[in-house]
Amino acid sequence: MSTFQDYLAALADRVTVALNDLLPCPTGPEKHLISAMRYAALGPGKRLRPYLLIESGRLVDADEQALLHAACAVECMHAYSLVHDDLPCMDDDDLRRGRPTVHREYDEVTAVLVGDALQSQAFELLADPETHASSAVRAELVLRLARASGPRGMVGGQMIDMAIKTGEVEDITIITRCQRMKTGSLISFCVEAGPVIAGADGDVRLALEGFAHDLGLCYQIVDDLLDARGDDRRTGKRIGKDADQGKATFVSILGVEGARDRAIRLADQAKAHLDPFGDRAGGLHEVIDHILARQS
Amino acid sequence: MSTFQDYLAALADRVTVALNDLLPCPTGPEKHLISAMRYAALGPGKRLRPYLLIESGRLVDADEQALLHAACAVECMHAYSLVHDDLPCMDDDDLRRGRPTVHREYDEVTAVLVGDALQSQAFELLADPETHASSAVRAELVLRLARASGPRGMVGGQMIDMAIKTGEVEDITIITRCQRMKTGSLISFCVEAGPVIAGADGDVRLALEGFAHDLGLCYQIVDDLLDARGDDRRTGKRIGKDADQGKATFVSILGVEGARDRAIRLADQAKAHLDPFGDRAGGLHEVIDHILARQS
Repeated sequence: MSTFQDYLAALADRVTVALNDLLPCPTGPEKHLISAMRYAALGPGKRLRPYLLIESGRLVDADEQALLHAACAVECMHAYSLVHDDLPCMDDDDLRRGRPTVHREYDEVTAVLVGDALQSQAFELLADPETHASSAVRAELVLRLARASGPRGMVGGQMIDMAIKTGEVEDITIITRCQRMKTGSLISFCVEAGPVIAGADGDVRLALEGFAHDLGLCYQIVDDLLDARGDDRRTGKRIGKDADQGKATFVSILGVEGARDRAIRLADQAKAHLDPFGDRAGGLHEVIDHILARQS
Repeated sequence: MSTFQDYLAALADRVTVALNDLLPCPTGPEKHLISAMRYAALGPGKRLRPYLLIESGRLVDADEQALLHAACAVECMHAYSLVHDDLPCMDDDDLRRGRPTVHREYDEVTAVLVGDALQSQAFELLADPETHASSAVRAELVLRLARASGPRGMVGGQMIDMAIKTGEVEDITIITRCQRMKTGSLISFCVEAGPVIAGADGDVRLALEGFAHDLGLCYQIVDDLLDARGDDRRTGKRIGKDADQGKATFVSILGVEGARDRAIRLADQAKAHLDPFGDRAGGLHEVIDHILARQS
């Protein structure tokens, strides 16, 4: 295992430990719901979004405790979106991160409510004075996460994605916009959170926003490539699903080689955005390489 | 129509007009989702929660614009909970507020995502600087709404309610706790928001919290009485559902007369909490009478 992967795994552990402390305890008649929330949020995962948030926050010397809490909030938001995406009426998936999805392990009612509760948990974490002493920082984090996850962000992207799946949409411009909203907006939030926490200036924010934009799209193209070529032992979810469903993806439109080229070009662009940070951006350079090389 | 009902209707209209302005416009490839959000949030409704929020906020001279925006946020949160409660895997309802439920008018995928998007919209509204100039107020509103709607609040209550429906739970203590969480916590948020916005002191908050507690339970008991005795022309939803499902309710446990007596006692207690406000609390006294007398 490379040094970088050790580092990523250590940070993932730190986030999981923090989330374990921050999520409510399974007590009271609502304990069934809370156990299922914990199952969804604390399961194995690379914690790539928390990594991006913490690592880009360190570039601007943001407070570590605030970064950790914000990272946990993003992980709750991400986990909720996975639980709802997996529902029978959505992707109807049985496996997630190598384990039964929430509606398979529990039931559909529980899965809907777990997603709902994890979303409110994300906002509760950001608004909590424990996260940051400044209410201006907390309110701005909430506002940005709400916009990133709402109808013009993650949920809007998921809605378009469902239309793409049923073959209603096959336009590369709309597919790009969809992925930008569905995956990219939360990734953008991750790299914006550090500058908000640190009160960093406009130029730094702009550089990180450019980085997030290219990285998010690169991530999604690699995801499509993995779906087209991967195997389900590695991804921990059913694969070849997109092709089964006749869904237009970057791969179906650009071809495997075209999609691969596009991903590499986006990775290069993402790195170029980090030039102003010099060597300090090493951790973010490595995560780009990791995403390009990922097998799951 | 009584003067009070005119007043309630006028305030409901004002909230609907504001919500119409504050919700996103149905443009872009995500317009299907946004149209459905607007269908769910802007449909006919008494806007009882916004009324409570605005009327109790006026008791402490809270800023009107802030009250209106916070009222819209609560209505988004309430609308989301109705859309998810109506889903086939939950209550499987066809009618809501006299119109087809979101999953009947659109489809199940849309209904899940509409609920998700309305929840993030609620937090976006509260965190927006347009709502209040003070970030401390905005962050506190977010924190309180997140707690009121999360696993120890509304969503937790809904989880317990599903267990009550399947007959797993028949204990009056748990049923009371469930209703306190499912309905009461959002009602409590409504009467707490005004004092937060106005920066009002502890005694005032305590009086309004006591009021909210008794009112929320009273509201739910009347709901159970309506379900047991109402007709679906008036309530705009399928009735006698609880009895069909063998669900334990205040009525099945206390009997119709017992439940009625309990509701009246709670209404009296709720009014007593308002004594410190004297005549200024007239609008809240009237809403209690309205709830006791409601036929739908």
